[in-house]
Amino acid sequence: MKKDIFVKHITKENMEVNDAFMVVKKGVLSTKNSTKYMNLELRDKTGTIEGKIWDNVDTFNNLFDKNDIVSVKSRSRFYQGRPQLTINDIRKAGENLALADMRMFFAESEAGIDLLKEEYYQFTGQLQEPHMASLFSILNNRKDILEKFFLYPASIGVHHVYMGGLLEHSISLAKMGTHVVHTMGGNVDIVIAGALLHDIGKVEEIEIKGGFRYSDKGRLLGHITLGVMMLEDIIREIPGFPPHIADILLHIIISHHGIEEWGSPKKPMSVEALMVHYLDNLDAKVTGVREHMKENMEDEKWTAYHRLYESRFYKLPEG
Amino acid sequence: MKKDIFVKHITKENMEVNDAFMVVKKGVLSTKNSTKYMNLELRDKTGTIEGKIWDNVDTFNNLFDKNDIVSVKSRSRFYQGRPQLTINDIRKAGENLALADMRMFFAESEAGIDLLKEEYYQFTGQLQEPHMASLFSILNNRKDILEKFFLYPASIGVHHVYMGGLLEHSISLAKMGTHVVHTMGGNVDIVIAGALLHDIGKVEEIEIKGGFRYSDKGRLLGHITLGVMMLEDIIREIPGFPPHIADILLHIIISHHGIEEWGSPKKPMSVEALMVHYLDNLDAKVTGVREHMKENMEDEKWTAYHRLYESRFYKLPEG
Amino acid sequence: MKKDIFVKHITKENMEVNDAFMVVKKGVLSTKNSTKYMNLELRDKTGTIEGKIWDNVDTFNNLFDKNDIVSVKSRSRFYQGRPQLTINDIRKAGENLALADMRMFFAESEAGIDLLKEEYYQFTGQLQEPHMASLFSILNNRKDILEKFFLYPASIGVHHVYMGGLLEHSISLAKMGTHVVHTMGGNVDIVIAGALLHDIGKVEEIEIKGGFRYSDKGRLLGHITLGVMMLEDIIREIPGFPPHIADILLHIIISHHGIEEWGSPKKPMSVEALMVHYLDNLDAKVTGVREHMKENMEDEKWTAYHRLYESRFYKLPEG
Amino acid sequence: MKKDIFVKHITKENMEVNDAFMVVKKGVLSTKNSTKYMNLELRDKTGTIEGKIWDNVDTFNNLFDKNDIVSVKSRSRFYQGRPQLTINDIRKAGENLALADMRMFFAESEAGIDLLKEEYYQFTGQLQEPHMASLFSILNNRKDILEKFFLYPASIGVHHVYMGGLLEHSISLAKMGTHVVHTMGGNVDIVIAGALLHDIGKVEEIEIKGGFRYSDKGRLLGHITLGVMMLEDIIREIPGFPPHIADILLHIIISHHGIEEWGSPKKPMSVEALMVHYLDNLDAKVTGVREHMKENMEDEKWTAYHRLYESRFYKLPEG
Amino acid sequence: MKKDIFVKHITKENMEVNDAFMVVKKGVLSTKNSTKYMNLELRDKTGTIEGKIWDNVDTFNNLFDKNDIVSVKSRSRFYQGRPQLTINDIRKAGENLALADMRMFFAESEAGIDLLKEEYYQFTGQLQEPHMASLFSILNNRKDILEKFFLYPASIGVHHVYMGGLLEHSISLAKMGTHVVHTMGGNVDIVIAGALLHDIGKVEEIEIKGGFRYSDKGRLLGHITLGVMMLEDIIREIPGFPPHIADILLHIIISHHGIEEWGSPKKPMSVEALMVHYLDNLDAKVTGVREHMKENMEDEKWTAYHRLYESRFYKLPEG
Amino acid sequence: MKKDIFVKHITKENMEVNDAFMVVKKGVLSTKNSTKYMNLELRDKTGTIEGKIWDNVDTFNNLFDKNDIVSVKSRSRFYQGRPQLTINDIRKAGENLALADMRMFFAESEAGIDLLKEEYYQFTGQLQEPHMASLFSILNNRKDILEKFFLYPASIGVHHVYMGGLLEHSISLAKMGTHVVHTMGGNVDIVIAGALLHDIGKVEEIEIKGGFRYSDKGRLLGHITLGVMMLEDIIREIPGFPPHIADILLHIIISHHGIEEWGSPKKPMSVEALMVHYLDNLDAKVTGVREHMKENMEDEKWTAYHRLYESRFYKLPEG
Repeated sequence: MKKDIFVKHITKENMEVNDAFMVVKKGVLSTKNSTKYMNLELRDKTGTIEGKIWDNVDTFNNLFDKNDIVSVKSRSRFYQGRPQLTINDIRKAGENLALADMRMFFAESEAGIDLLKEEYYQFTGQLQEPHMASLFSILNNRKDILEKFFLYPASIGVHHVYMGGLLEHSISLAKMGTHVVHTMGGNVDIVIAGALLHDIGKVEEIEIKGGFRYSDKGRLLGHITLGVMMLEDIIREIPGFPPHIADILLHIIISHHGIEEWGSPKKPMSVEALMVHYLDNLDAKVTGVREHMKENMEDEKWTAYHRLYESRFYKLPEG
Repeated sequence: MKKDIFVKHITKENMEVNDAFMVVKKGVLSTKNSTKYMNLELRDKTGTIEGKIWDNVDTFNNLFDKNDIVSVKSRSRFYQGRPQLTINDIRKAGENLALADMRMFFAESEAGIDLLKEEYYQFTGQLQEPHMASLFSILNNRKDILEKFFLYPASIGVHHVYMGGLLEHSISLAKMGTHVVHTMGGNVDIVIAGALLHDIGKVEEIEIKGGFRYSDKGRLLGHITLGVMMLEDIIREIPGFPPHIADILLHIIISHHGIEEWGSPKKPMSVEALMVHYLDNLDAKVTGVREHMKENMEDEKWTAYHRLYESRFYKLPEG
Repeated sequence: MKKDIFVKHITKENMEVNDAFMVVKKGVLSTKNSTKYMNLELRDKTGTIEGKIWDNVDTFNNLFDKNDIVSVKSRSRFYQGRPQLTINDIRKAGENLALADMRMFFAESEAGIDLLKEEYYQFTGQLQEPHMASLFSILNNRKDILEKFFLYPASIGVHHVYMGGLLEHSISLAKMGTHVVHTMGGNVDIVIAGALLHDIGKVEEIEIKGGFRYSDKGRLLGHITLGVMMLEDIIREIPGFPPHIADILLHIIISHHGIEEWGSPKKPMSVEALMVHYLDNLDAKVTGVREHMKENMEDEKWTAYHRLYESRFYKLPEG
Repeated sequence: MKKDIFVKHITKENMEVNDAFMVVKKGVLSTKNSTKYMNLELRDKTGTIEGKIWDNVDTFNNLFDKNDIVSVKSRSRFYQGRPQLTINDIRKAGENLALADMRMFFAESEAGIDLLKEEYYQFTGQLQEPHMASLFSILNNRKDILEKFFLYPASIGVHHVYMGGLLEHSISLAKMGTHVVHTMGGNVDIVIAGALLHDIGKVEEIEIKGGFRYSDKGRLLGHITLGVMMLEDIIREIPGFPPHIADILLHIIISHHGIEEWGSPKKPMSVEALMVHYLDNLDAKVTGVREHMKENMEDEKWTAYHRLYESRFYKLPEG
Repeated sequence: MKKDIFVKHITKENMEVNDAFMVVKKGVLSTKNSTKYMNLELRDKTGTIEGKIWDNVDTFNNLFDKNDIVSVKSRSRFYQGRPQLTINDIRKAGENLALADMRMFFAESEAGIDLLKEEYYQFTGQLQEPHMASLFSILNNRKDILEKFFLYPASIGVHHVYMGGLLEHSISLAKMGTHVVHTMGGNVDIVIAGALLHDIGKVEEIEIKGGFRYSDKGRLLGHITLGVMMLEDIIREIPGFPPHIADILLHIIISHHGIEEWGSPKKPMSVEALMVHYLDNLDAKVTGVREHMKENMEDEKWTAYHRLYESRFYKLPEG
Repeated sequence: MKKDIFVKHITKENMEVNDAFMVVKKGVLSTKNSTKYMNLELRDKTGTIEGKIWDNVDTFNNLFDKNDIVSVKSRSRFYQGRPQLTINDIRKAGENLALADMRMFFAESEAGIDLLKEEYYQFTGQLQEPHMASLFSILNNRKDILEKFFLYPASIGVHHVYMGGLLEHSISLAKMGTHVVHTMGGNVDIVIAGALLHDIGKVEEIEIKGGFRYSDKGRLLGHITLGVMMLEDIIREIPGFPPHIADILLHIIISHHGIEEWGSPKKPMSVEALMVHYLDNLDAKVTGVREHMKENMEDEKWTAYHRLYESRFYKLPEG
C-alpha cells in the first residue's frame, strides 16, 4: 500500500486529499433540515482529522465500517481554526492489510524502529551461552513472531502504546539490565534473554484491528501464559537445551510482574528474575508517566490524576 | 520389591522383623557412658516405628541415609508401651524404587486407588466432544504422566496429602461438577475435562523422595504453568483441535485458584471455569480441614488453630 | 387485582390498552412550543413500555407518583419501530398491593415458583433430625415470612434479581449441598437446613416498593444479623432444641459470606458451614454472571466489564 | 467460700499455709533417684506461687485436676529467693464455685468493681428516653447477665484481661462518650446505651474455668452476634419500643469493630455509632498497650514487640 | 477591603448591588441570535448567586479571571424564583487580598473563630511543662503561621472544609484529649500540644486561591512532612528543649494517621500518640459525615453514598 | 586503639592471644561440681570465637558487660575441632570507642570503603547545578554526619548489614541511576543527589553499640523523617536554594519506599523519584537475597525460606 498525504500535511484550505486513512469514529447525523450527513474521525501515523460526507450518505455508509482502512477522495477546509475534509468518495481500501503497512496509520516509537532492531540483533548476537544463542537464532527465523515483536505496542493503554513500543521496552530493559549486572553482578546472558523474552507473549495477547486490542486468547490466557507456551515451543526444538536454563527463562516470564496480585503465578526467585522484574516496573512506569504527561497536564507542573497509578505527577521545571 | 511385615503387624515382644522400611529420621547419639547408638524413625504405609542400633554404629551409618528405603534385620521390643525395633543389620535396599513400589511406604487414599481409576476411565469415556475425547485418549497412553496422576498426592502439606490424593481430588471435582451442571446448566464435557486436568501440572511440580516435596521446576514454575505446558503439548498432537476449546481448558488451569493473590494469572471468566474454581476450593478446604481434624483435635469438639486457614474448626457431634 | 394486557401483548398500532402497570420513570417536559407533556416508563412482568401524556398534564401529575401501580387508559402507537402508549387517563390503582399481586409487575424466576415451592416442601419434609423438622414446621406456618421467602429476589442488583430468586437460590444450594454430602460426607440435615436458612434475613433486609430496595433495618443491620434474630425467634419456641444444632445453624448464617471482609463476623468453622459458603458463592456468582451475560454482551463472545466482579466474562460458543 | 491467706502474704519461711488456691499448672516428675514428685503453680488474686508435693504423689494426683480450686495444707519455704509451698495435703475444694467467689482467685480491675457498679447505675439512671430507661430496668433485673457483666474481663488476652474489665471498659466508653457528645453534639442517651451494651455479648462469649476462655457458642457466634440476640430478647419485652431506637442500638453492637475486616458485618453508619466505635478502639488499644507495658518492657523506655498490634511501644519518661 | 452587601441580603427585585464578590465559575455563551453573553457564579461567605453580563462581553472578559475577587456594579432580578445579578460593570478588585479579607468570601466555622482563638490561648496558657510553654510562646509570635492556623480549613474537601476549620478541629481534639486523659490517665501537656500541632503542616499544604487547594509543596511533601519541618524549626530556637519531648511531639505528627496505608510513616507508639490519632479520626469522620449530611441527604433518613467513606449514613430522627 | 591478633589468625593450639575483642554473648554457668565458669562469645571483623573463664569468675564478671570492647589475656585451645580461648584476664578496654575504631570489630563492605569514598566524591564533584553542589559541599564538611554515612550499615538486619553498607548502597544507586538517565532521560543531578541522600536519615536512625540497633528517635521517627530534618537543616544554610529543587529532593526522601504501606507518606510523583524508588528496591532486594544466600542455603540450589521476602530463592548454577 502506498500513502503520500499524511494528516500533518493538511495545513491549507482546499487541498486535494486523495489517500488512505483509518476510520476511528463514524456516525450518521441529521441537519436541522433533516438531511443526513456523516461525521468521521480519520487517522494516520501523524494525527487525526475530522471528515464530513454531505452527499450520498446511505450509499457510502455501506462501503466501509469503523476501524477500516479507507480510500478517500476529498478537499480540505478549515472550521473553527482546524482542518477538516469534505469527502466526495470513500470506500474500504482492501482486506488484511499487512502489518508493515499498518505503520502508516499508527504513531510509532520515537526511538526509531530500525535503530531498535539493530540494537536487538546486537544483543542477541552477543549472547555467550550457546543454547540461548540457538534459542534466538530460531526465534529470529520465526518471521511471524518477529515481525509482531518489532512492531507491536507494549500495552494497549498504559505504557509504550505505539508501534515499536514492545521492542523499545524490551531493548530498554536489556540495556539497563546489562548495566545493572555490570554494577551488581549476575548472569548477563540470562538477564538479556529474560529482558527480550519477558513480554514475548504480547504478540499473541494483542491484536491490531483499527486500534490495539486484546485477542480472545489474550483475554483468557494473558501474555504470561502465552509467552510460556511460545518459549517452550522454541526450546523443544533445541537438542540438549539445559533444563535449568529453560526453567529460569520460563520463571522470568512468569515472575516478571513481581507479585501474585499483579498476575505473576510466582514471585521472582533468582537474582536475574528480580532484576528483570524491577527494571520492567521502572521502564513501564516512567514511560507510562511520560505518556500521561504528554496529553494530560493540568498546568505547567502537574498532570491530571492517573487512575491506574492513583496519583498526579509532577514535571520538574527544566534547567 | 516384596514386603511382608508392615508396621501395624508389629504388636508383640521379640518378633523377628526382617523387611523393608523407609527411613524418616536418623540420628547418632551417645549414652552416658559415651557409647554411640543410633535412633531411627522407620515408616511404611501402615505407620511409623522407632528403631535402635546399639552396635557397629559407624559401619551402619555409612550404609544408608535419611529418606532411603532400607532392608532391616531386627527384633521387636516394647518400651513405655510402644513397639520398637532393635536392629542388627540395616542397609540401603536399592536405587530408584518404582513409583508403584512406593505405595508400600506411604499412606494412601481411603477411597481406594483402583476404584478411583475406574471412575476416572468412566469419566474420560463419557466425553461427547470428539476432540476432548481424543485428548484423553492420548493422555491415557502417556503412561509416564498417568501413573503419577494416579499415585501422587494433591499437595505436599495441606490437603489430600497421601498417595492417590491427586486422583481422588480430581474425581471428586468431576463428580460434583457433573451434578452442578445438572442443577445449574453449563457444558458438562468442559467441566469434566477441566476437573480432571486442572491440577495435572502437579505430577511435575511434586516429586516423591523419602517424602513428598517440590521439584526444582515445581518451585520455579508451579503446577499452573507446568500444567499449561503439558496440556499444550498434548493438544498440539490433535489435528483440528478447536482453538476455543484449547483456550478454555488452558484458561481453567490458569484460573482455578480464582484470584491473582492466590497465584492465578487470570480470574475465572467463564461459567465452567467458575465451577471448577469453586468446587476445587470446596473440595480442598473440606478435605484439608478433615485431615487437620484427624491429627489436631484439642478436645472432642475443637481442633487446634490451623495456621494456613487461620481458624480453629468445630467437629459437629454425631447424631 | 386483575390484569389482562401485558407489555408483551402490545405488538400492534392502535390497540386499546386499559390496564394496570407500574410506573418506573416519570418526567414532565416541554415541547418547542412550550406545551407540557409527560414521559413515563411503565412496567409489568413481561417488560417495559414508554407512555406519553399530551393533555391535562398538570391534573394527571397529581394523581400518581413514580413507583405506583397505576390504572391506565391508552392506545398504542409505534415510534422508531418500538411500541408506545398514548395515555388518556392515568391514576393510582390503590394502596398496599398484596405481594402476590406484585408478581404481575416484576420478572420472575424462570424455574417456576410453583415448582420451586414443591421442591422446598420436599426438602423440609425429608429432614430426619426431629428438632430441625420442627423448626421448619413452625417456619412453614409463619405465612408472613414464608410468602416473602417464596417471592423475594435474592439480591437487589447482583444475582437472582427477580421474584422467586431467593427461593430459587436456596433450593439450588440445597440440591447441590445434598449431592456434595453424598460425594464428600457430612451431615445432610444441617446442610439442607443451612442452605434454606442462610439468606432468610433477606425477607427483612429487602422491601419491594416500585423496585427492589433495602429497608432501613436492612441497611443498618443486614440480612446476616436479621437472619440470626429470625432464626433465634423460631428456635426459642421449640422445647429441647439442642444447643449445638442451634449454634451451628446460626453459625452457618453468620459465616456464609466466608470471610470477614465480606461481612461475615465469623469464618466458616465446620465442614457443613464450609459447604454452604462455597456453594453460595458458586451459585450466586454463576447466576450473576449469566444475568450479566443476558444484558451486557459487547460481542457474541464477551460481556462488558462487570464492576463488582472486576472482570469481563466469556460465553463459550455452543456445540 | 472463705479465704484468709493470699499469695502476697507468704513472705516468710515456714509459715503454715492452709487455704484455697487455683491450680494453674500441674505436673508429675521424677528425681534422679526415680522417686516421683509433683510440681504445681497455684494462684489467687494477688499472684502465683510454686507448690511441691514430695509424698503420696499418686494419691493426691487423683484428688484434683488442673484448673480446680483446691484446699491445701502446706508450709512455706524459700528457694532461690522466692517463696514456695511444701504441700502435705491437697484436694478439690468443691464443685461449681460461685462467680463472686472466683474473685478471690483472679486479678481484678484497679478501678474497683464497687465504684464501677455505682457509676454504671448512675449512667443507667440518667437516661431520658423512657424506652431505653425501661431496657436497662429489665437488664438490671437479669441478675444472671448482670453479675457476669460486672465481673467478666473485656477480653481473654488483649485488653482489660481481669475481673471487672468488661465493666471498666464499658464505663470508660460511657464517660468519654458523654464528653464527646458534649463537645461535638449527638444523642447522649444513644451513646451511653451503646457504650454500655456494645460488648454485652461477651458474657456469653467468654467463660471462666481455671482461666478466661471462649465458650463453644463464643467461638461459633462471637460476642457481636450473641449481643444482638441478648438485646433483641430484652427489647421484645418492652411494649412500643421504637423500632428506630432498636435498630440503632443493634447497629451499634454490630458495627462497633468499625470495618468488616475486624468482624463487623456493617460499618458504623450514624454519628453515635461512629463515636462508640472510635472510643472503643481508643480505650481498648490504650489499655491493651498499658497492660503490655506492665509485663513486657525490654528496657525502661521500650516494650517488646506486640504481635497483635505489630509494634513496640514507648513509655514516656515521667516528669 | 470593605463589603456591605452580601449574597444573603439580595432578596428583592431590582436592588442595586455594587460590591465585591469572588468569581467561582465564568463562561461565555451565545444566544440563539449569536450574541455573546457571560454566565458567572459569584460567591461570598453567605452563599452563591448567578450573574449575567449582556453587554461588552469581550471587554469585561479581559478584566478578570475565574477565582478573582471582583468589584461588581449590578441590579438584582429574579429568574425561576431565584435571585440573579444583571451586571453592568465588573473588574478585578486588586491583587493579593489579605487572608483576613478572604473571610468575607468563604463560609466559616459555626463555632466562631474568635471564640476558638480564645480557647486556643487558654490551652496554650495552661501548659505546665516549661519547654512546651516556650514552644507555643514562639509559635504565638509567628504571625505568618498563626494567622493561617486560625483561618485555614482542616481539609480541602473531606471535613471542616471552611475557614477556621483547622482551628476548630484542633481545639476539638484538645478538649476531648483533656477529658480522655482525665478518664484514662496520660500526660495532658503532651496530648494538648499534640492535638494543637498535629495538623500544623496544613498551613503550608493548603493554599487559598479562589478556593481551597493544595500548594506544590503540599502535594509533593504533605502536611505530615511539612509539619515536622515547621516544628523542628521552632524547637531549634529553644535552648535545652528535652530531646524526648521533641521526639514524642514529632512522633505524634507523623503517626497521627495511625497506619502506614494512610500516609503515616510510623504507627502511634505511645499512649499519647494513640489518643491524638483516635480522636483525630473520630473528630474528622463525625464532622465529615455531618458536612455530608448537610448537602447530600437522599431522603429524611439516609445520605447519598459517600465515596471516600464507602457508605451511606443514617440520620437519627430527633426526639 | 591498636589490634594485632584477629580471630582469623587463631589457628593453632596454645597461641598467646592478648588483644581486644567485642563481647557478643556472656553467661555464667556451673559445672557438675558446682564450680562457676563463664562462657563468652567474642567478635572482631574477621569472625567470632568462644572464650572460657575458669577462675575468679565473680571478679571478672564485674569488670565488663555484654557489648563492651574488652582487653583479653588468654591462650588458644581446640575443642571439637574449633578454636577457643582460655582467658586469664579480661576487662573493659575503655569508654566511647571512636567509630573508626569500631571497624576492627565488625564485618565491612567487600567493595572497600576507601574505594567507595572515592566514588562518592566523584559523584558529588560532578553535579552541575550549583545549589546542589553547595549542598554537598556543606554536607562534606559535616564530619559528624559524613563519618557515619561512610561507615554505617544500610539496615540492621535485612540488606547491606555491615559497615560501609549505607555508602555502598547509595553509590550503587547513583551508578545505576546515572545509567538509567542515560537510557531513559531525566535530570541526572537530581537522580544522583537523590540516590546519595535518600537514606541519609539512617545515620540518626541506627546506632552502633555492640551490634547495629535502632536509636530511640530512630524507632519513633524513622529514617525518612530524620532525613527530611537533616536535609532541611542543610538547605536552610544555602542562600537562594531553589524551592522546587528543595521540594523534589525532600520528596525523593519521603517517597523512596514507593507506597504508603511501606512507610512513605507520599508515592513518587516525578520521574526522578520513581527512578530512585525502583533502583532502591532493586539494590536492596538483590543484595538482601545474596546476603541470605551466603548463610542460609538448604542445598546447593535453594535457600531457606526468607520470612520478610516470603519466598525461597534459587541460586543459578555457574557456567
